[in-house]
Amino acid sequence: MAMDSPILNFSINPIGTVHSCFKEKFAIPRQPSLALAARGEIELFSPYDDPLAIAGLEEVSHLWLSFIFHQAMPKDGEVRLRVRPPRLGGNKKIGVFASRATHRPNPLGLSVVKLDGIKNGRLQISGIDLLDGTPIVDIKPYVPYADALPTASNAIANESPELILIEFTPDALCSAIDQGKRLGQPVKELVEQMLAQDPKPAYQNPDPKRIYGVKIWDLEVKWLYPQQGLITVISISKSG
Amino acid sequence: MAMDSPILNFSINPIGTVHSCFKEKFAIPRQPSLALAARGEIELFSPYDDPLAIAGLEEVSHLWLSFIFHQAMPKDGEVRLRVRPPRLGGNKKIGVFASRATHRPNPLGLSVVKLDGIKNGRLQISGIDLLDGTPIVDIKPYVPYADALPTASNAIANESPELILIEFTPDALCSAIDQGKRLGQPVKELVEQMLAQDPKPAYQNPDPKRIYGVKIWDLEVKWLYPQQGLITVISISKSG
Repeated sequence: MAMDSPILNFSINPIGTVHSCFKEKFAIPRQPSLALAARGEIELFSPYDDPLAIAGLEEVSHLWLSFIFHQAMPKDGEVRLRVRPPRLGGNKKIGVFASRATHRPNPLGLSVVKLDGIKNGRLQISGIDLLDGTPIVDIKPYVPYADALPTASNAIANESPELILIEFTPDALCSAIDQGKRLGQPVKELVEQMLAQDPKPAYQNPDPKRIYGVKIWDLEVKWLYPQQGLITVISISKSG
Repeated sequence: MAMDSPILNFSINPIGTVHSCFKEKFAIPRQPSLALAARGEIELFSPYDDPLAIAGLEEVSHLWLSFIFHQAMPKDGEVRLRVRPPRLGGNKKIGVFASRATHRPNPLGLSVVKLDGIKNGRLQISGIDLLDGTPIVDIKPYVPYADALPTASNAIANESPELILIEFTPDALCSAIDQGKRLGQPVKELVEQMLAQDPKPAYQNPDPKRIYGVKIWDLEVKWLYPQQGLITVISISKSG
């Protein structure tokens, strides 16, 4: 069988970018479909910022986004054949092609997101796991009869992540509500949904006084693990 | 909200190529999950042709392949905001991002395929819609709980394509069976499954004597439409 000689290099240009609630990689949910309060929007670049390019999308509920892992670009000459996926506890290695880890031979990501609407030419999306500023290289409609495979199985990622209990201190709860009103975003729900999937590596067993933090929107969220299986959100404040 | 200035260009290198039953674009099934006789294999390029890079894939039933539409590369400066998807009859235009058409701003394709096994380091795949020689740029496992969305809807591609009836002339049937034995491939089933999705554009209403043809493996398949809703396969022969 004759094989075409491999074309060695393709050039890919972003067609848009994401404005996302997630300002850093840590705490981005592994199962974003359970985090519908995780919202953002896609800004299309010229010449694709034209209503013609998205005509028809109003009939589509979900999108596949192809994007660049811009904070996980491979270094020159770097070859990583195996990765440590967080869902295996972060300390077991599997082949890079058996995982969706961010460090890949080509830094291409793939996410399915809910399309909530189009406002001022921007695609309003939710259930996202995308970092703010992520370059988008393609948008395709989800096609249920082709993409939703009832017989598919994956023993490595067989079940959706276990959820953990979240409580807020009274101050943190007040702040979540106030900041949510200011931003016009479901901040309390986002914090709950994001932390319920427990962002820390599974093998960590933290000191109950160790404070974890992450940035969402323009906020700094802080929490700790007072006991196994429980997160207490201790503060939500505008980041400096 | 501060936006990173767009990075203008990413370089993507194929990590492998596909050896496929499909030797030309015409007649590649629109719903490949209904064409499990459509088989091929992925040959990984060095340094990814290493068992370490695919360790764990034996626990995965389906794969997402990101690939290059190498026969639909955009010309320099070409901007196509709208496309004519075949399933709308081939004569109605919609936005490129509301379609999975091959001519896209970045020529990136996305396919889910069944992983049947690994033989001599090559991934054996079926239910494919990939052209022979397609450059593969990423392989990711299908994750049922994240990818199979029970509530998703898409009114543009709402139902799987209607199937049409296939019959063989006695000579063509014999030939399908003989050639199938020679190739070690389910040729008869492939012809049936491929043609049942009716490859001709929906708006064509062909003369009953017009002969259509396509290459699969090293074979030339010929058929005609003796009446609406029926295909007769008239010959299957080794191509010259």
